[in-house]
Amino acid sequence: MCSDKIHTGLLVVSYATYLLLGAIVFWALEKNTEIEQKRAVIQMKEAFLQNFTHLTVAEVEQFVKNLTDAVQRGVYPVGNESQTEVSNWDLSNSFFFVGAVVSTIGYGTQCPKTVAGQIFCVVFASFGIPLTIVFLHRVSKMLSLLCERLGRWLYEKGMKKKKIKFLTLLFFLVMGILVFLCLPSLVFQVVEGWSYSEGVYFAFITLSTIGFGDYVVGKQPDRNYPSYYRSLVAIWIIFGLAWIALLFNLLTTLLEDTEKKIAQDLHKRGKA
Amino acid sequence: MCSDKIHTGLLVVSYATYLLLGAIVFWALEKNTEIEQKRAVIQMKEAFLQNFTHLTVAEVEQFVKNLTDAVQRGVYPVGNESQTEVSNWDLSNSFFFVGAVVSTIGYGTQCPKTVAGQIFCVVFASFGIPLTIVFLHRVSKMLSLLCERLGRWLYEKGMKKKKIKFLTLLFFLVMGILVFLCLPSLVFQVVEGWSYSEGVYFAFITLSTIGFGDYVVGKQPDRNYPSYYRSLVAIWIIFGLAWIALLFNLLTTLLEDTEKKIAQDLHKRGKA
Ligand SMILES: [K+]
Ligand SMILES: [K+]
Repeated sequence: MCSDKIHTGLLVVSYATYLLLGAIVFWALEKNTEIEQKRAVIQMKEAFLQNFTHLTVAEVEQFVKNLTDAVQRGVYPVGNESQTEVSNWDLSNSFFFVGAVVSTIGYGTQCPKTVAGQIFCVVFASFGIPLTIVFLHRVSKMLSLLCERLGRWLYEKGMKKKKIKFLTLLFFLVMGILVFLCLPSLVFQVVEGWSYSEGVYFAFITLSTIGFGDYVVGKQPDRNYPSYYRSLVAIWIIFGLAWIALLFNLLTTLLEDTEKKIAQDLHKRGKA
Repeated sequence: MCSDKIHTGLLVVSYATYLLLGAIVFWALEKNTEIEQKRAVIQMKEAFLQNFTHLTVAEVEQFVKNLTDAVQRGVYPVGNESQTEVSNWDLSNSFFFVGAVVSTIGYGTQCPKTVAGQIFCVVFASFGIPLTIVFLHRVSKMLSLLCERLGRWLYEKGMKKKKIKFLTLLFFLVMGILVFLCLPSLVFQVVEGWSYSEGVYFAFITLSTIGFGDYVVGKQPDRNYPSYYRSLVAIWIIFGLAWIALLFNLLTTLLEDTEKKIAQDLHKRGKA
Protein backbone atom coordinates (compact mmCIF):
# COMPACT_ATOMS: atom_id res chain seq x y z
CA MET A 1 0.00 0.00 0.00
CA CYS A 2 2.84 2.38 0.96
CA SER A 3 4.78 1.41 -2.19
CA ASP A 4 1.59 2.08 -4.15
CA LYS A 5 1.36 5.62 -2.79
CA ILE A 6 5.01 6.36 -3.65
CA HIS A 7 4.24 4.93 -7.07
CA THR A 8 1.28 7.28 -7.66
CA GLY A 9 3.08 10.30 -6.21
CA LEU A 10 6.11 9.71 -8.42
CA LEU A 11 3.90 9.40 -11.46
CA VAL A 12 1.92 12.58 -10.78
CA VAL A 13 5.08 14.61 -10.10
CA SER A 14 6.95 13.43 -13.22
CA TYR A 15 3.84 13.87 -15.39
CA ALA A 16 3.20 17.42 -14.13
CA THR A 17 6.88 18.32 -14.58
CA TYR A 18 6.91 16.96 -18.13
CA LEU A 19 3.83 19.01 -19.06
CA LEU A 20 5.13 22.18 -17.42
CA LEU A 21 8.52 21.94 -19.16
CA GLY A 22 6.75 21.36 -22.48
CA ALA A 23 4.50 24.37 -21.93
CA ILE A 24 7.51 26.59 -21.20
CA VAL A 25 9.31 25.45 -24.38
CA PHE A 26 6.26 26.09 -26.59
CA TRP A 27 5.79 29.45 -24.91
CA ALA A 28 9.40 30.41 -25.68
CA LEU A 29 9.30 29.09 -29.26
CA GLU A 30 5.95 30.44 -30.42
CA LYS A 31 5.31 33.70 -28.62
CA ASN A 32 7.27 36.12 -30.82
CA THR A 33 6.13 34.65 -34.13
CA GLU A 34 2.52 34.91 -33.03
CA ILE A 35 2.84 38.54 -31.95
CA GLU A 36 4.45 39.40 -35.30
CA GLN A 37 1.72 37.63 -37.30
CA LYS A 38 -1.04 39.30 -35.28
CA ARG A 39 0.56 42.72 -35.67
CA ALA A 40 0.80 42.25 -39.45
CA VAL A 41 -2.88 41.35 -39.76
CA ILE A 42 -4.04 44.23 -37.56
CA GLN A 43 -1.87 46.64 -39.58
CA MET A 44 -3.35 45.28 -42.82
CA LYS A 45 -6.83 45.86 -41.40
CA GLU A 46 -6.03 49.37 -40.16
CA ALA A 47 -4.52 50.37 -43.50
CA PHE A 48 -7.70 49.07 -45.14
CA LEU A 49 -9.96 50.99 -42.75
CA GLN A 50 -8.14 54.26 -43.52
CA ASN A 51 -8.32 53.73 -47.25
CA PHE A 52 -11.34 51.65 -48.19
CA THR A 53 -13.35 54.46 -49.80
CA HIS A 54 -10.59 54.88 -52.42
CA LEU A 55 -10.12 51.17 -53.24
CA THR A 56 -11.41 49.16 -56.20
CA VAL A 57 -13.67 46.14 -55.84
CA ALA A 58 -10.75 43.84 -56.80
CA GLU A 59 -8.58 45.32 -54.03
CA VAL A 60 -11.34 44.85 -51.45
CA GLU A 61 -11.83 41.26 -52.66
CA GLN A 62 -8.09 40.67 -52.12
CA PHE A 63 -8.43 42.09 -48.60
CA VAL A 64 -11.29 39.67 -47.85
CA LYS A 65 -9.13 36.80 -49.12
CA ASN A 66 -6.13 37.83 -46.97
CA LEU A 67 -8.40 38.17 -43.95
CA THR A 68 -9.84 34.68 -44.53
CA ASP A 69 -6.33 33.21 -44.79
CA ALA A 70 -5.30 34.92 -41.53
CA VAL A 71 -8.34 33.61 -39.62
CA GLN A 72 -7.72 30.11 -40.99
CA ARG A 73 -4.15 30.33 -39.64
CA GLY A 74 -5.62 31.24 -36.24
CA VAL A 75 -4.96 34.99 -36.25
CA TYR A 76 -8.13 36.96 -35.43
CA PRO A 77 -8.11 40.56 -36.65
CA VAL A 78 -10.79 41.80 -34.27
CA GLY A 79 -9.99 44.81 -32.10
CA ASN A 80 -7.05 47.20 -32.44
CA GLU A 81 -3.29 46.90 -32.11
CA SER A 82 -3.15 47.24 -28.31
CA GLN A 83 -5.04 43.93 -28.05
CA THR A 84 -2.35 42.01 -29.96
CA GLU A 85 -0.46 41.73 -26.68
CA VAL A 86 -3.05 39.18 -25.47
CA SER A 87 -1.25 36.03 -26.62
CA ASN A 88 -2.34 32.46 -27.36
CA TRP A 89 1.10 31.54 -26.09
CA ASP A 90 1.26 32.87 -22.55
CA LEU A 91 2.13 30.19 -19.96
CA SER A 92 -1.48 29.32 -19.11
CA ASN A 93 -2.53 28.91 -22.76
CA SER A 94 0.68 26.96 -23.52
CA PHE A 95 -0.27 24.56 -20.74
CA PHE A 96 -3.77 24.16 -22.22
CA PHE A 97 -2.18 23.45 -25.62
CA VAL A 98 0.23 20.88 -24.14
CA GLY A 99 -2.71 19.11 -22.47
CA ALA A 100 -4.58 18.99 -25.79
CA VAL A 101 -1.48 17.44 -27.42
CA VAL A 102 -0.65 14.67 -24.94
CA SER A 103 -4.31 13.66 -24.51
CA THR A 104 -4.53 13.55 -28.37
CA ILE A 105 -7.65 15.75 -28.18
CA GLY A 106 -5.88 18.32 -30.38
CA TYR A 107 -8.54 21.04 -30.64
CA GLY A 108 -6.38 22.90 -33.14
CA THR A 109 -7.49 26.36 -31.96
CA GLN A 110 -3.79 27.07 -31.48
CA CYS A 111 -0.99 25.21 -33.29
CA PRO A 112 2.78 25.67 -33.47
CA LYS A 113 3.68 27.74 -36.53
CA THR A 114 7.47 27.86 -36.29
CA VAL A 115 9.56 24.97 -37.68
CA ALA A 116 11.20 24.51 -34.26
CA GLY A 117 7.78 24.44 -32.57
CA GLN A 118 6.45 21.82 -34.97
CA ILE A 119 9.49 19.54 -34.58
CA PHE A 120 9.41 19.95 -30.79
CA CYS A 121 5.70 19.08 -30.89
CA VAL A 122 6.46 15.74 -32.61
CA VAL A 123 9.22 14.84 -30.13
CA PHE A 124 7.25 16.05 -27.11
CA ALA A 125 4.11 14.09 -28.08
CA SER A 126 6.10 10.90 -28.84
CA PHE A 127 6.86 10.53 -25.14
CA GLY A 128 3.99 12.63 -23.76
CA ILE A 129 1.23 10.43 -25.22
CA PRO A 130 2.53 7.14 -23.71
CA LEU A 131 3.14 8.98 -20.41
CA THR A 132 -0.48 10.19 -20.47
CA ILE A 133 -1.69 6.64 -21.14
CA VAL A 134 0.29 5.42 -18.09
CA PHE A 135 -1.18 8.27 -16.02
CA LEU A 136 -4.75 7.57 -17.18
CA HIS A 137 -4.28 3.82 -16.52
CA ARG A 138 -3.71 4.73 -12.89
CA VAL A 139 -6.82 6.94 -12.77
CA SER A 140 -8.80 4.15 -14.46
CA LYS A 141 -7.68 1.76 -11.71
CA MET A 142 -9.04 4.18 -9.10
CA LEU A 143 -12.38 4.29 -10.92
CA SER A 144 -12.62 0.51 -11.26
CA LEU A 145 -11.78 0.13 -7.55
CA LEU A 146 -15.01 2.02 -6.86
CA CYS A 147 -16.92 -0.53 -8.96
CA GLU A 148 -15.16 -3.40 -7.18
CA ARG A 149 -16.17 -2.01 -3.80
CA LEU A 150 -19.79 -1.81 -4.94
CA GLY A 151 -19.52 -5.43 -6.15
CA ARG A 152 -18.11 -6.62 -2.82
CA TRP A 153 -20.87 -4.79 -0.94
CA LEU A 154 -23.53 -6.46 -3.13
CA TYR A 155 -21.81 -9.85 -2.66
CA GLU A 156 -22.01 -9.44 1.11
CA LYS A 157 -25.72 -8.70 0.69
CA GLY A 158 -26.00 -12.22 -0.81
CA MET A 159 -26.43 -11.33 -4.51
CA LYS A 160 -25.44 -13.77 -7.28
CA LYS A 161 -22.12 -13.17 -9.11
CA LYS A 162 -23.63 -12.84 -12.60
CA LYS A 163 -26.17 -10.31 -11.40
CA ILE A 164 -23.44 -8.36 -9.59
CA LYS A 165 -21.34 -8.15 -12.76
CA PHE A 166 -24.30 -6.82 -14.74
CA LEU A 167 -25.27 -4.33 -12.02
CA THR A 168 -21.76 -2.91 -11.54
CA LEU A 169 -21.42 -2.47 -15.30
CA LEU A 170 -24.77 -0.69 -15.46
CA PHE A 171 -23.74 1.49 -12.49
CA PHE A 172 -20.44 2.32 -14.22
CA LEU A 173 -22.22 3.27 -17.47
CA VAL A 174 -25.12 5.26 -16.00
CA MET A 175 -23.10 7.06 -13.32
CA GLY A 176 -20.42 7.91 -15.89
CA ILE A 177 -22.94 9.35 -18.34
CA LEU A 178 -24.49 11.41 -15.54
CA VAL A 179 -21.23 12.64 -13.97
CA PHE A 180 -19.10 13.10 -17.10
CA LEU A 181 -21.63 14.06 -19.80
CA CYS A 182 -24.97 15.28 -18.38
CA LEU A 183 -23.77 17.29 -15.38
CA PRO A 184 -20.86 19.12 -17.14
CA SER A 185 -23.23 20.02 -20.01
CA LEU A 186 -25.40 21.90 -17.50
CA VAL A 187 -22.32 23.81 -16.32
CA PHE A 188 -21.33 24.63 -19.93
CA GLN A 189 -24.87 25.84 -20.59
CA VAL A 190 -24.53 28.39 -17.78
CA VAL A 191 -20.87 29.40 -18.14
CA GLU A 192 -20.40 29.22 -21.94
CA GLY A 193 -23.96 30.06 -23.00
CA TRP A 194 -24.32 26.97 -25.22
CA SER A 195 -27.54 25.00 -25.61
CA TYR A 196 -27.76 21.76 -23.60
CA SER A 197 -27.31 19.57 -26.69
CA GLU A 198 -24.24 21.61 -27.71
CA GLY A 199 -22.86 20.98 -24.21
CA VAL A 200 -23.36 17.21 -24.53
CA TYR A 201 -21.82 17.30 -28.04
CA PHE A 202 -18.77 19.23 -26.77
CA ALA A 203 -18.36 16.96 -23.72
CA PHE A 204 -18.48 13.82 -25.85
CA ILE A 205 -16.22 15.19 -28.61
CA THR A 206 -13.66 16.16 -25.95
CA LEU A 207 -13.69 12.97 -23.85
CA SER A 208 -13.66 10.69 -26.92
CA THR A 209 -10.48 12.67 -27.86
CA ILE A 210 -11.95 13.56 -31.26
CA GLY A 211 -11.55 17.25 -30.37
CA PHE A 212 -12.87 19.10 -33.43
CA GLY A 213 -12.23 22.50 -31.87
CA ASP A 214 -15.58 23.94 -33.03
CA TYR A 215 -16.49 24.34 -29.34
CA VAL A 216 -13.72 24.97 -26.79
CA VAL A 217 -14.14 25.92 -23.11
CA GLY A 218 -12.92 29.21 -21.75
CA LYS A 219 -12.06 30.77 -25.11
CA GLN A 220 -14.84 33.31 -25.70
CA PRO A 221 -13.34 36.80 -25.26
CA ASP A 222 -16.69 38.42 -24.38
CA ARG A 223 -17.44 36.08 -21.42
CA ASN A 224 -16.38 36.28 -17.77
CA TYR A 225 -15.17 32.93 -16.48
CA PRO A 226 -15.05 32.10 -12.75
CA SER A 227 -11.48 31.61 -11.52
CA TYR A 228 -11.98 27.96 -10.51
CA TYR A 229 -13.51 27.08 -13.91
CA ARG A 230 -10.23 25.99 -15.56
CA SER A 231 -9.27 23.69 -12.66
CA LEU A 232 -12.76 22.18 -12.67
CA VAL A 233 -12.53 21.51 -16.42
CA ALA A 234 -9.06 19.94 -16.00
CA ILE A 235 -10.34 17.55 -13.30
CA TRP A 236 -13.37 16.69 -15.47
CA ILE A 237 -11.13 15.91 -18.47
CA ILE A 238 -8.68 13.71 -16.49
CA PHE A 239 -11.36 11.54 -14.87
CA GLY A 240 -13.61 11.64 -17.94
CA LEU A 241 -10.83 10.43 -20.25
CA ALA A 242 -10.09 7.55 -17.86
CA TRP A 243 -13.80 6.67 -17.71
CA ILE A 244 -14.38 6.75 -21.47
CA ALA A 245 -11.19 4.75 -22.13
CA LEU A 246 -12.53 2.00 -19.83
CA LEU A 247 -15.91 2.21 -21.58
CA PHE A 248 -14.44 1.92 -25.09
CA ASN A 249 -12.31 -1.00 -23.83
CA LEU A 250 -15.46 -2.72 -22.61
CA LEU A 251 -17.31 -2.13 -25.88
CA THR A 252 -14.27 -3.32 -27.88
CA THR A 253 -14.15 -6.61 -25.92
CA LEU A 254 -17.91 -7.00 -26.38
CA LEU A 255 -17.66 -6.41 -30.15
CA GLU A 256 -14.70 -8.78 -30.54
CA ASP A 257 -16.54 -11.53 -28.64
CA THR A 258 -19.72 -11.11 -30.72
CA GLU A 259 -17.70 -11.05 -33.93
CA LYS A 260 -15.80 -14.24 -32.98
CA LYS A 261 -19.09 -16.02 -32.26
CA ILE A 262 -20.60 -15.00 -35.61
CA ALA A 263 -17.46 -16.06 -37.48
CA GLN A 264 -17.43 -19.45 -35.69
CA ASP A 265 -21.13 -19.97 -36.48
CA LEU A 266 -20.54 -19.17 -40.15
CA HIS A 267 -17.56 -21.54 -40.22
CA LYS A 268 -19.59 -24.38 -38.65
CA ARG A 269 -22.44 -23.86 -41.13
CA GLY A 270 -19.93 -23.84 -44.00
CA LYS A 271 -18.61 -27.24 -42.84
CA ALA A 272 -22.10 -28.74 -42.23
CA MET B 1 -7.04 -20.42 -40.97
CA CYS B 2 -10.27 -20.55 -43.00
CA SER B 3 -12.27 -19.35 -39.97
CA ASP B 4 -9.72 -16.56 -39.64
CA LYS B 5 -10.35 -15.40 -43.20
CA ILE B 6 -14.14 -15.38 -42.68
CA HIS B 7 -13.45 -13.45 -39.51
CA THR B 8 -11.45 -10.74 -41.29
CA GLY B 9 -13.85 -10.59 -44.24
CA LEU B 10 -16.84 -10.17 -41.94
CA LEU B 11 -15.08 -7.43 -40.02
CA VAL B 12 -14.06 -5.46 -43.13
CA VAL B 13 -17.54 -5.68 -44.64
CA SER B 14 -19.38 -4.62 -41.47
CA TYR B 15 -16.89 -1.82 -40.82
CA ALA B 16 -17.15 -0.44 -44.37
CA THR B 17 -20.97 -0.65 -44.24
CA TYR B 18 -21.08 1.17 -40.91
CA LEU B 19 -18.89 4.00 -42.24
CA LEU B 20 -20.84 4.29 -45.51
CA LEU B 21 -24.20 4.45 -43.73
CA GLY B 22 -22.82 7.08 -41.37
CA ALA B 23 -21.49 9.15 -44.26
CA ILE B 24 -24.90 9.06 -45.97
CA VAL B 25 -26.71 10.20 -42.82
CA PHE B 26 -24.32 13.15 -42.26
CA TRP B 27 -24.62 14.06 -45.93
CA ALA B 28 -28.43 14.13 -45.64
CA LEU B 29 -28.44 16.03 -42.33
CA GLU B 30 -25.82 18.69 -43.04
CA LYS B 31 -25.92 19.49 -46.74
CA ASN B 32 -28.79 22.01 -46.82
CA THR B 33 -27.74 23.93 -43.71
CA GLU B 34 -24.26 24.32 -45.10
CA ILE B 35 -25.49 25.62 -48.46
CA GLU B 36 -27.73 28.16 -46.69
CA GLN B 37 -24.90 29.37 -44.44
CA LYS B 38 -22.51 29.70 -47.38
CA ARG B 39 -25.10 31.61 -49.43
CA ALA B 40 -25.73 34.01 -46.54
CA VAL B 41 -22.01 34.81 -46.16
CA ILE B 42 -21.49 35.28 -49.91
CA GLN B 43 -24.53 37.59 -50.06
CA MET B 44 -23.18 39.58 -47.11
CA LYS B 45 -19.87 39.94 -48.96
CA GLU B 46 -21.52 40.93 -52.24
CA ALA B 47 -23.71 43.53 -50.53
CA PHE B 48 -20.54 44.91 -48.95
CA LEU B 49 -18.66 45.00 -52.25
CA GLN B 50 -21.46 47.01 -53.89
CA ASN B 51 -21.66 49.49 -51.04
CA PHE B 52 -18.31 49.83 -49.30
CA THR B 53 -17.49 53.34 -50.56
CA HIS B 54 -20.58 54.67 -48.74
CA LEU B 55 -20.03 52.88 -45.42
CA THR B 56 -18.62 54.23 -42.15
CA VAL B 57 -15.52 52.79 -40.49
CA ALA B 58 -17.71 51.20 -37.77
CA GLU B 59 -19.82 49.42 -40.40
CA VAL B 60 -16.73 48.09 -42.13
CA GLU B 61 -15.33 46.95 -38.78
CA GLN B 62 -18.62 45.07 -38.16
CA PHE B 63 -18.24 43.43 -41.60
CA VAL B 64 -14.71 42.27 -40.73
CA LYS B 65 -16.06 40.83 -37.47
CA ASN B 66 -18.89 38.95 -39.23
CA LEU B 67 -16.44 37.62 -41.80
CA THR B 68 -14.10 36.38 -39.06
CA ASP B 69 -17.01 34.61 -37.32
CA ALA B 70 -18.03 32.94 -40.59
CA VAL B 71 -14.51 31.67 -41.32
CA GLN B 72 -14.21 30.36 -37.76
CA ARG B 73 -17.45 28.43 -38.30
CA GLY B 74 -15.89 26.91 -41.44
CA VAL B 75 -17.65 28.99 -44.11
CA TYR B 76 -15.13 30.53 -46.53
CA PRO B 77 -16.40 33.62 -48.36
CA VAL B 78 -13.92 33.43 -51.23
CA GLY B 79 -15.29 33.38 -54.77
CA ASN B 80 -18.82 34.19 -55.91
CA GLU B 81 -22.23 32.62 -55.38
CA SER B 82 -21.93 29.96 -58.09
CA GLN B 83 -19.11 28.36 -56.08
CA THR B 84 -21.36 27.80 -53.05
CA GLU B 85 -22.60 24.63 -54.74
CA VAL B 86 -19.22 22.98 -54.00
CA SER B 87 -20.16 21.36 -50.68
CA ASN B 88 -18.15 20.10 -47.69
CA TRP B 89 -20.95 17.56 -47.35
CA ASP B 90 -21.01 15.67 -50.65
CA LEU B 91 -20.71 11.89 -50.21
CA SER B 92 -16.92 11.78 -50.62
CA ASN B 93 -16.30 14.57 -48.07
CA SER B 94 -18.86 13.03 -45.69
CA PHE B 95 -16.89 9.80 -45.84
CA PHE B 96 -13.66 11.69 -45.08
CA PHE B 97 -15.42 13.31 -42.11
CA VAL B 98 -16.73 9.97 -40.82
CA GLY B 99 -13.20 8.54 -41.00
CA ALA B 100 -11.87 11.50 -39.00
CA VAL B 101 -14.56 10.87 -36.36
CA VAL B 102 -14.20 7.11 -35.79
CA SER B 103 -10.38 7.27 -35.82
CA THR B 104 -10.67 10.14 -33.25
CA ILE B 105 -8.34 12.23 -35.45
CA GLY B 106 -11.08 14.88 -35.69
CA TYR B 107 -9.39 17.49 -37.89
CA GLY B 108 -12.32 19.82 -37.36
CA THR B 109 -12.13 21.37 -40.85
CA GLN B 110 -15.77 20.31 -41.19
CA CYS B 111 -18.11 19.73 -38.25
CA PRO B 112 -21.85 19.03 -37.93
CA LYS B 113 -23.71 22.30 -37.35
CA THR B 114 -27.31 21.06 -37.10
CA VAL B 115 -28.62 19.75 -33.76
CA ALA B 116 -29.57 16.46 -35.42
CA GLY B 117 -26.08 16.16 -36.95
CA GLN B 118 -24.39 16.77 -33.59
CA ILE B 119 -26.54 14.22 -31.75
CA PHE B 120 -26.06 11.67 -34.53
CA CYS B 121 -22.31 12.32 -34.32
CA VAL B 122 -22.30 11.37 -30.61
CA VAL B 123 -24.30 8.16 -31.19
CA PHE B 124 -22.37 7.22 -34.33
CA ALA B 125 -18.97 7.70 -32.67
CA SER B 126 -20.01 5.78 -29.52
CA PHE B 127 -20.12 2.57 -31.57
CA GLY B 128 -17.82 3.65 -34.40
CA ILE B 129 -14.77 4.23 -32.20
CA PRO B 130 -14.82 0.75 -30.56
CA LEU B 131 -15.49 -0.78 -33.99
CA THR B 132 -12.43 1.05 -35.35
CA ILE B 133 -10.34 -0.21 -32.43
CA VAL B 134 -11.43 -3.78 -33.25
CA PHE B 135 -10.57 -3.21 -36.92
CA LEU B 136 -7.16 -1.70 -36.12
CA HIS B 137 -6.41 -4.58 -33.70
CA ARG B 138 -6.72 -6.91 -36.66
CA VAL B 139 -4.42 -4.76 -38.82
CA SER B 140 -1.94 -4.59 -35.91
CA LYS B 141 -1.93 -8.38 -35.77
CA MET B 142 -0.99 -8.51 -39.47
CA LEU B 143 1.88 -6.10 -38.82
CA SER B 144 3.18 -8.03 -35.80
CA LEU B 145 2.99 -11.28 -37.81
CA LEU B 146 5.60 -9.71 -40.13
CA CYS B 147 7.87 -9.11 -37.13
CA GLU B 148 7.30 -12.67 -35.90
CA ARG B 149 8.30 -14.06 -39.29
CA LEU B 150 11.52 -12.04 -39.19
CA GLY B 151 12.15 -13.36 -35.67
CA ARG B 152 11.63 -16.98 -36.77
CA TRP B 153 13.97 -16.47 -39.73
CA LEU B 154 16.68 -15.06 -37.42
CA TYR B 155 16.12 -17.95 -34.99
CA GLU B 156 16.71 -20.44 -37.77
CA LYS B 157 19.94 -18.58 -38.57
CA GLY B 158 21.02 -19.50 -35.01
CA MET B 159 20.66 -16.11 -33.31
CA LYS B 160 20.07 -15.77 -29.54
CA LYS B 161 16.50 -15.03 -28.33
CA LYS B 162 17.33 -11.80 -26.50
CA LYS B 163 19.17 -10.42 -29.52
CA ILE B 164 16.26 -11.41 -31.78
CA LYS B 165 13.78 -9.54 -29.58
CA PHE B 166 15.91 -6.40 -29.69
CA LEU B 167 16.48 -6.65 -33.46
CA THR B 168 12.79 -7.20 -34.35
CA LEU B 169 11.81 -4.22 -32.17
CA LEU B 170 14.43 -2.05 -33.85
CA PHE B 171 13.24 -3.25 -37.27
CA PHE B 172 9.64 -2.44 -36.30
CA LEU B 173 10.59 1.06 -35.14
CA VAL B 174 12.94 2.02 -37.98
CA MET B 175 10.88 0.50 -40.80
CA GLY B 176 7.73 2.13 -39.39
CA ILE B 177 9.35 5.57 -39.20
CA LEU B 178 10.59 5.16 -42.77
CA VAL B 179 7.36 3.78 -44.26
CA PHE B 180 4.79 5.76 -42.26
CA LEU B 181 6.53 9.08 -41.57
CA CYS B 182 9.52 9.76 -43.86
CA LEU B 183 8.20 8.36 -47.16
CA PRO B 184 4.68 9.90 -46.95
CA SER B 185 6.25 13.28 -46.08
CA LEU B 186 8.09 13.16 -49.42
CA VAL B 187 4.78 12.52 -51.18
CA PHE B 188 3.11 15.42 -49.31
CA GLN B 189 6.02 17.67 -50.26
CA VAL B 190 5.33 17.01 -53.95
CA VAL B 191 1.53 16.81 -53.96
CA GLU B 192 0.62 19.40 -51.30
CA GLY B 193 3.59 21.73 -51.73
CA TRP B 194 4.53 21.64 -48.02
CA SER B 195 8.11 21.71 -46.74
CA TYR B 196 9.54 18.34 -45.68
CA SER B 197 9.34 19.19 -41.97
CA GLU B 198 5.71 20.28 -42.40
CA GLY B 199 5.05 16.88 -44.02
CA VAL B 200 6.60 15.01 -41.06
CA TYR B 201 4.63 17.23 -38.65
CA PHE B 202 1.36 16.55 -40.49
CA ALA B 203 2.05 12.79 -40.73
CA PHE B 204 2.78 12.53 -37.01
CA ILE B 205 -0.12 14.76 -35.92
CA THR B 206 -2.47 12.59 -38.03
CA LEU B 207 -1.22 9.13 -37.01
CA SER B 208 -1.00 10.05 -33.32
CA THR B 209 -4.72 11.00 -33.75
CA ILE B 210 -4.04 14.49 -32.39
CA GLY B 211 -5.40 15.92 -35.67
CA PHE B 212 -5.09 19.69 -35.22
CA GLY B 213 -6.50 20.35 -38.68
CA ASP B 214 -3.93 23.08 -39.47
CA TYR B 215 -2.66 20.85 -42.30
CA VAL B 216 -5.12 18.50 -44.05
CA VAL B 217 -4.50 16.45 -47.20
CA GLY B 218 -6.44 17.03 -50.40
CA LYS B 219 -8.17 20.22 -49.22
CA GLN B 220 -6.35 23.00 -51.12
CA PRO B 221 -8.74 24.33 -53.79
CA ASP B 222 -5.93 25.62 -56.05
CA ARG B 223 -4.13 22.24 -56.34
CA ASN B 224 -4.68 19.34 -58.70
CA TYR B 225 -4.68 16.00 -56.88
CA PRO B 226 -4.04 12.69 -58.69
CA SER B 227 -7.10 10.44 -58.63
CA TYR B 228 -5.40 7.65 -56.66
CA TYR B 229 -4.17 10.11 -53.99
CA ARG B 230 -7.17 9.72 -51.66
CA SER B 231 -7.00 5.90 -51.69
CA LEU B 232 -3.26 6.01 -51.05
CA VAL B 233 -3.80 8.34 -48.08
CA ALA B 234 -6.57 6.07 -46.70
CA ILE B 235 -4.27 3.00 -46.85
CA TRP B 236 -1.46 5.00 -45.22
CA ILE B 237 -3.76 6.11 -42.37
CA ILE B 238 -5.17 2.59 -41.70
CA PHE B 239 -1.77 0.87 -41.50
CA GLY B 240 -0.11 3.90 -39.90
CA LEU B 241 -2.68 4.08 -37.10
CA ALA B 242 -2.21 0.35 -36.40
CA TRP B 243 1.58 0.81 -36.36
CA ILE B 244 1.60 3.81 -34.05
CA ALA B 245 -0.92 2.17 -31.68
CA LEU B 246 1.47 -0.78 -31.32
CA LEU B 247 4.37 1.63 -30.81
CA PHE B 248 2.57 3.64 -28.10
CA ASN B 249 1.60 0.35 -26.45
CA LEU B 250 5.25 -0.67 -26.40
CA LEU B 251 6.37 2.68 -24.96
CA THR B 252 3.58 2.54 -22.34
CA THR B 253 4.71 -0.92 -21.14
CA LEU B 254 8.31 0.29 -21.08
CA LEU B 255 7.39 3.39 -19.03
CA GLU B 256 5.25 1.39 -16.61
CA ASP B 257 8.06 -1.12 -16.05
CA THR B 258 10.65 1.62 -15.46
CA GLU B 259 8.31 3.45 -13.12
CA LYS B 260 7.59 0.28 -11.10
CA LYS B 261 11.33 -0.37 -10.72
CA ILE B 262 12.00 3.20 -9.50
CA ALA B 263 9.10 3.04 -7.02
CA GLN B 264 10.32 -0.33 -5.70
CA ASP B 265 13.87 1.03 -5.30
CA LEU B 266 12.57 4.07 -3.42
CA HIS B 267 10.46 1.83 -1.21
CA LYS B 268 13.42 -0.45 -0.40
CA ARG B 269 15.63 2.54 0.43
CA GLY B 270 12.87 3.94 2.68
CA LYS B 271 12.81 0.65 4.61
CA ALA B 272 16.64 0.32 4.84
K1 LIG C 1 -8.54 17.02 -33.22
K1 LIG D 1 -8.05 14.25 -31.94
